[in-house]
Amino acid sequence: MNVVIIGAVALGPKTACRIKRLNPEINVTMIDRDSIVSYGGCGIPYFISGDVSEATQLQTTSFHMVRDEKFFNKAKDVEVLTRTEAVSINRKQKTVLIRNLDTEQERELPYDKLVLATGSTPNRLTIPGSTLKNVFTVANIHDATHIRELIAKGKVSKPVVIGAGAIGLEMVEAFSDLWGLDTTLIEVQEQLLPGSISPNMSKMVKQHLIEKNVEKVFLKECVQEFGGEGQVEWIKTDKRTIDADLVVMAVGVRPNTQLAKDADLSISKNGAIKVNKQFQTTDSNIYAGGDCIENLHLVTGKPVYFPSGSLANRHGRMIGSNVLGATEEFPGVVTTFILKMFDLAIAATGISLDQAQRAGYDVFSTFVVQGDRAHFFPGMDLMYLEMVVEKESGRVFGVQGISGNGDALSARINAIGTLLQRKTFIKDISNLELAYAPPFSAAMDIVNALGNTAENIIAGKNRVMDIDQFEAVFGGPADQNYLFLDVRGPANAKPFVEAYPGLWLNIPQDELRDRIDEVPRDKNLVLICNSGVRSYEAQITLDLMGISTTKNLQGGVAAIKKSGMKLV
Amino acid sequence: MNVVIIGAVALGPKTACRIKRLNPEINVTMIDRDSIVSYGGCGIPYFISGDVSEATQLQTTSFHMVRDEKFFNKAKDVEVLTRTEAVSINRKQKTVLIRNLDTEQERELPYDKLVLATGSTPNRLTIPGSTLKNVFTVANIHDATHIRELIAKGKVSKPVVIGAGAIGLEMVEAFSDLWGLDTTLIEVQEQLLPGSISPNMSKMVKQHLIEKNVEKVFLKECVQEFGGEGQVEWIKTDKRTIDADLVVMAVGVRPNTQLAKDADLSISKNGAIKVNKQFQTTDSNIYAGGDCIENLHLVTGKPVYFPSGSLANRHGRMIGSNVLGATEEFPGVVTTFILKMFDLAIAATGISLDQAQRAGYDVFSTFVVQGDRAHFFPGMDLMYLEMVVEKESGRVFGVQGISGNGDALSARINAIGTLLQRKTFIKDISNLELAYAPPFSAAMDIVNALGNTAENIIAGKNRVMDIDQFEAVFGGPADQNYLFLDVRGPANAKPFVEAYPGLWLNIPQDELRDRIDEVPRDKNLVLICNSGVRSYEAQITLDLMGISTTKNLQGGVAAIKKSGMKLV
Repeated sequence: MNVVIIGAVALGPKTACRIKRLNPEINVTMIDRDSIVSYGGCGIPYFISGDVSEATQLQTTSFHMVRDEKFFNKAKDVEVLTRTEAVSINRKQKTVLIRNLDTEQERELPYDKLVLATGSTPNRLTIPGSTLKNVFTVANIHDATHIRELIAKGKVSKPVVIGAGAIGLEMVEAFSDLWGLDTTLIEVQEQLLPGSISPNMSKMVKQHLIEKNVEKVFLKECVQEFGGEGQVEWIKTDKRTIDADLVVMAVGVRPNTQLAKDADLSISKNGAIKVNKQFQTTDSNIYAGGDCIENLHLVTGKPVYFPSGSLANRHGRMIGSNVLGATEEFPGVVTTFILKMFDLAIAATGISLDQAQRAGYDVFSTFVVQGDRAHFFPGMDLMYLEMVVEKESGRVFGVQGISGNGDALSARINAIGTLLQRKTFIKDISNLELAYAPPFSAAMDIVNALGNTAENIIAGKNRVMDIDQFEAVFGGPADQNYLFLDVRGPANAKPFVEAYPGLWLNIPQDELRDRIDEVPRDKNLVLICNSGVRSYEAQITLDLMGISTTKNLQGGVAAIKKSGMKLV
Repeated sequence: MNVVIIGAVALGPKTACRIKRLNPEINVTMIDRDSIVSYGGCGIPYFISGDVSEATQLQTTSFHMVRDEKFFNKAKDVEVLTRTEAVSINRKQKTVLIRNLDTEQERELPYDKLVLATGSTPNRLTIPGSTLKNVFTVANIHDATHIRELIAKGKVSKPVVIGAGAIGLEMVEAFSDLWGLDTTLIEVQEQLLPGSISPNMSKMVKQHLIEKNVEKVFLKECVQEFGGEGQVEWIKTDKRTIDADLVVMAVGVRPNTQLAKDADLSISKNGAIKVNKQFQTTDSNIYAGGDCIENLHLVTGKPVYFPSGSLANRHGRMIGSNVLGATEEFPGVVTTFILKMFDLAIAATGISLDQAQRAGYDVFSTFVVQGDRAHFFPGMDLMYLEMVVEKESGRVFGVQGISGNGDALSARINAIGTLLQRKTFIKDISNLELAYAPPFSAAMDIVNALGNTAENIIAGKNRVMDIDQFEAVFGGPADQNYLFLDVRGPANAKPFVEAYPGLWLNIPQDELRDRIDEVPRDKNLVLICNSGVRSYEAQITLDLMGISTTKNLQGGVAAIKKSGMKLV
């Protein structure tokens, strides 16, 4: 039996190896246009940054063998044809016409089963100048090596990254951190990681960029033209012209489907290769997986395009089994992701507030700031989580978070993501059992606190204000109707009270009942503490005292600071 | 309405605060025998070690307020009676007879709802000398402060810890790490963390103790007597006499049920207070939770005693709601835990091999060693996971693991624990979606690898040998029937080949097909690589070549080294 696999980056090699392990007598041939195969594409930003010193490290196994043609032949008994393009598929004859890109030689490759592991292609802006030298996408090791060589030779001093998705942010770090380059980031939408996290959390991510001296972050700005003599020298947006000697376009990827289209295989509405749950295309002898297909989103119940090296590997193994007759079905995804940007990790699972609203759900979000471990344990750092909940039902649609400790953030996001495989409600979050010991978590973990807070909001006990609403009323024209009641201890509150006399009032939460006469009854009160917990208690006390024109600032002063507002 | 809560450490305060937040007009009185209330008992080892500098830190809120009687009164409007004992409950009159331990005064406290948050008491060995001075349990802040003072004054040089459960191991670190004391650990069972992890993984934990210079680890040893003039000076076991100037007994805890028993409330077979899913005892006006009750184990479907500060907090909140008329039901537990011991974290969820076998299940375990992040990412460290699987069905009963990075370990254990809330099968583990980016995980995460490996074992493709079986045949009398085939590269294998000529053979996996004639066909072959992955591939190749008398060493040389065997 002959199996041909088109594409040899992530899914292809995984499928090939799985097939050979299940039945070493199958002939497996894997072809790829590139000369370099089976590499960790997700590691490219870390190679460019210098964290990973050699490009070959992305191509080696964990035991330091380079996964090249020879390796696949010797260690895996898989034939790999590099610099080889699949020109067309003849489904009737069950052959693939392939062409060697160096020799131009063509030949037919017979298959019994064919696997399309054609992956995705980064989008390029189709604007004037986009083919100038030094305008890159981050697509393969050749480009990455080229970029790093330019930097190492001192030829880059003003890199510009277009697109503030995960790869864009990773690239900003790659240029700025170890290389210290003066990097500009441009995003057409109003926020960083648009769609993936809330605008409020996006502000906190932006603030981290600023703290890391990446101050040229231009949002809601549209790139219109690249210019320069031979190579890129400037970028024109709808707002300004920016000097640039290297540009990375990180504006999304699209599935590679041309081969499938030409072979009359069905393509989905959104432009990916259509497969069933067993990864069969509309031709049952042809399988597809990884970045060239869509997945079922288990939260929305709708298809979602979610390119991911991890997903490709899991697809690949299952395709390997199914090619040999298994009928394994892939359940779907909850689009869990994480990324590192300087000293901050950003992670999410399920869908964001924005995505839920666009899908027509009536949702709110709750935002909780709490330690990533017991507050008394050395090294404790604050973690920030936001949860998207349906108002009526209390159903949980997703959680997004940021933390200085990505592993600790994964510990929460992975657990919630696992819950989200099935319909999840607030109580599942409130009661979620997580590994507890003071060096790793609080007795009431931030995840449980997130559920508890959401429950209090739905019950109408906790009436909250978000950081953007705070920003809108604090110091704005609406100011005179508001009073900001700081319920922390006097030492914490003092600088604020001094900076905003008459506007910022301090009555510690534990003195509130005794000092209730000092609370003005003719203003909208915004209750503020460090995180939103004591101010919630204050709100309850004030309600009892008949003062109910209060809002509790979610995340409190921690959220104010994290989003970069400098009040004092 | 009056609510009385007996016990004010973890569950009590949480219940009290929840009630007051839901309805500030309820009168809540909380009583405790101790003078110190509402503290993080799980933090005691870190206070003794000096990681936490002041005992009050265990008693403060995250915003540095000490949670004493005054705090509860002022900030929470909860009355706290310390140094006060609940003598008896009069269920007919709905009163609790309380006694002030200082004044000996008694009075009746009326309740509408009563909450038993009586917690647990550490077991003490009932052997001669157990009441000598400086023989402690780790139960409260007074003992902890006393122990730390003794150390700080230089009066402790030979501490002995009895019991190698979580608290015992934490105490060993507390004495040895910052204080540098020459600590002895004694455990009556054959392994560390008996029942919680496998004997093989226990060896790895023991090896970490040895690397941290805790060399006096005496397993399967029974303490028979404490001796000394006034204070403890020596310990006699069934095997030796050990000098000791301070002893900590960490031999488990038992639920405090006397008050409930005396009030004729039902007690479970295993000796905990019986409650329904809403935490009501057999008197529907009396609730109980935390360390004095049992929980439903969601994996075994049977009751389990699982004392935990985190669990007590989650119980407490729900009891608070239910006391006020809610009907929330606690689902149960999967006994997820983690602990830090020097630079190693040990975590588990579900049940261990031993527990599953004793419960009558026909199970096996699979052991996987893999990086905690992408192998090319700086700072990658190996993680070790073991999974317990039912042979016939592929049902997953539990996962145990060790790692130098406890947060990264939590990221895996929390996700698996979340799965285990429902019946879990191998494919759920193989397909589990985890947050992926090279700084935090591998494209095929160790969790997925664990599922894949278990699948290969069940399919009969991967015939494995565990590290204890390896130890039994390597260098033993059975030796002559065995040959150890190292399929790594020559550089890695060389020291082993030189140390064991004729016994340890090296043919790299990628040369195996070409050099098949060198493989002896008259021996039991143990296939070895660094982790068990390449040796699995070698096993498939050898099967194809007609050599099937092979076993693949799970975890490979990494497991050999981690468990402390010094082969070269």
